[in-house]
Amino acid sequence: MKDFSLERLKQEIFSKKSFLCVGLDVDLNKIPPFLLKESDPIFAFNKAIIDATHPYTIAYKPNIAFYEAYGEKGWQSLRKTIDYLNEQHPHIFTIADAKRGDIGNTATMYAKAFFEDLQFDSVTVAPYMGQDSVEPFLAFEHKATILLALTSNKGAFDFQTLTTEGAPLYQQVLTRSQQWHNAHNLMYVVGATKAEYLADIRRIVPQSFLLVPGVGAQGGDLKEVCKYGLNDSVGLIINASRAVIYASQGEDFAQKAGEAAHSLQKEMAAILQTKYPSL
Amino acid sequence: MKDFSLERLKQEIFSKKSFLCVGLDVDLNKIPPFLLKESDPIFAFNKAIIDATHPYTIAYKPNIAFYEAYGEKGWQSLRKTIDYLNEQHPHIFTIADAKRGDIGNTATMYAKAFFEDLQFDSVTVAPYMGQDSVEPFLAFEHKATILLALTSNKGAFDFQTLTTEGAPLYQQVLTRSQQWHNAHNLMYVVGATKAEYLADIRRIVPQSFLLVPGVGAQGGDLKEVCKYGLNDSVGLIINASRAVIYASQGEDFAQKAGEAAHSLQKEMAAILQTKYPSL
Repeated sequence: MKDFSLERLKQEIFSKKSFLCVGLDVDLNKIPPFLLKESDPIFAFNKAIIDATHPYTIAYKPNIAFYEAYGEKGWQSLRKTIDYLNEQHPHIFTIADAKRGDIGNTATMYAKAFFEDLQFDSVTVAPYMGQDSVEPFLAFEHKATILLALTSNKGAFDFQTLTTEGAPLYQQVLTRSQQWHNAHNLMYVVGATKAEYLADIRRIVPQSFLLVPGVGAQGGDLKEVCKYGLNDSVGLIINASRAVIYASQGEDFAQKAGEAAHSLQKEMAAILQTKYPSL
Repeated sequence: MKDFSLERLKQEIFSKKSFLCVGLDVDLNKIPPFLLKESDPIFAFNKAIIDATHPYTIAYKPNIAFYEAYGEKGWQSLRKTIDYLNEQHPHIFTIADAKRGDIGNTATMYAKAFFEDLQFDSVTVAPYMGQDSVEPFLAFEHKATILLALTSNKGAFDFQTLTTEGAPLYQQVLTRSQQWHNAHNLMYVVGATKAEYLADIRRIVPQSFLLVPGVGAQGGDLKEVCKYGLNDSVGLIINASRAVIYASQGEDFAQKAGEAAHSLQKEMAAILQTKYPSL
């Protein structure tokens, strides 16, 4: 089994001067039409995107829904994508964005699917069913489990921000999950559209890595997120999906994706230089 | 696309005098060892279980984790299982127990995976991400969306029962979701191990169907659940998994599963006769 190491992730961040994650949310209606004649258009697209963006990227995050929607064929594209990443770029962190959540035995089956069968470094997990739905993921000692805390969508205000016995629900999720077995394997999803909440979140989980979607297409602001979210070892993984992978629908799609990733990386490098001048 | 109809489900319940759902949580370590020589042991197992239990059963619920753990091969077994159900028993309600939950566009991809590609009647969905993560499922007019409310596991007490602005979180989920677009397509998951909560739940959603796992292996009591959970049109779907499908590990596994299902159906028939004497 491929082991994830937090040290390797930090090294990758400081050596690439980037904390960019590229989301591989591949929709056959949005990729360049000429790719549809390939035997596996999704993998062909991902491979080209990875080849063009990997110098600027410290993580890739396939969104599992976009593969599952194509059944066995989609699952095969997903497998080829993660295999390609693990072979070509073993130092890059991989995230199965699956948002799974189920009880003990079932959670173990999901963990096996993503950690053992597909060899992802990490998986996103939903907290609603509580401790015994998350600990089966945490039981995989050399893998990371990324728990939903405060998401980037409008619906985050339906339940996540409700006041519950002294603190909003998403803070209860942060606080309580830190007490669970193998909590050191936890990271959290925090939407970039909620940058002003990051100060509170950092008080509760000062050391944890936060996976932050919502920069770019969803309207989140990179500088705001960094202002409140950076910690001593960066502690942020900022995801961009559409803004990078659909930068162009033409023959130059991979080149444009590379440029979009490079441009985000340069913004990040500038932020890192200000925050950690000794770099 | 196969359309789900609530009327058909109710007819099936009253004609079979059963509200039993059989959970197809197929673990290769638990099925009779002689099946492992089959080319698709999971499907071979499911087919035998379906053939033996369908007279007593009004719903089948494959737990998606158990298929995903085997990658493309597992997905193929799942497809053969749902195809077999839709061809042989189109009147039986089918539930993809997937507990998915993600934002708009991604939720739509999950909905397509289960409603369009696999032709399930319904899918289970987690509420943590709120309205815009659930409405893409509800948008499928002739499908049912089964929202987690109060689950059967110990972890249900971590967040679901927290007091939030006047009511426990699971009640907020019930109340608020009833205001969402196409809420008439909603059903709810309520664990049998929480029977005493059913009176409150019925006050909030008197008409909704409740999918109730946790009877049998998990310790829930059928009579208690029925006492508080039955409504004018039954309104309950009681799931049993291990107690039925693993009733025996020998050559007689299907026969024993049939007997276990029949025994549950007889209990249910007796309850229905008391509750609806005009039947």
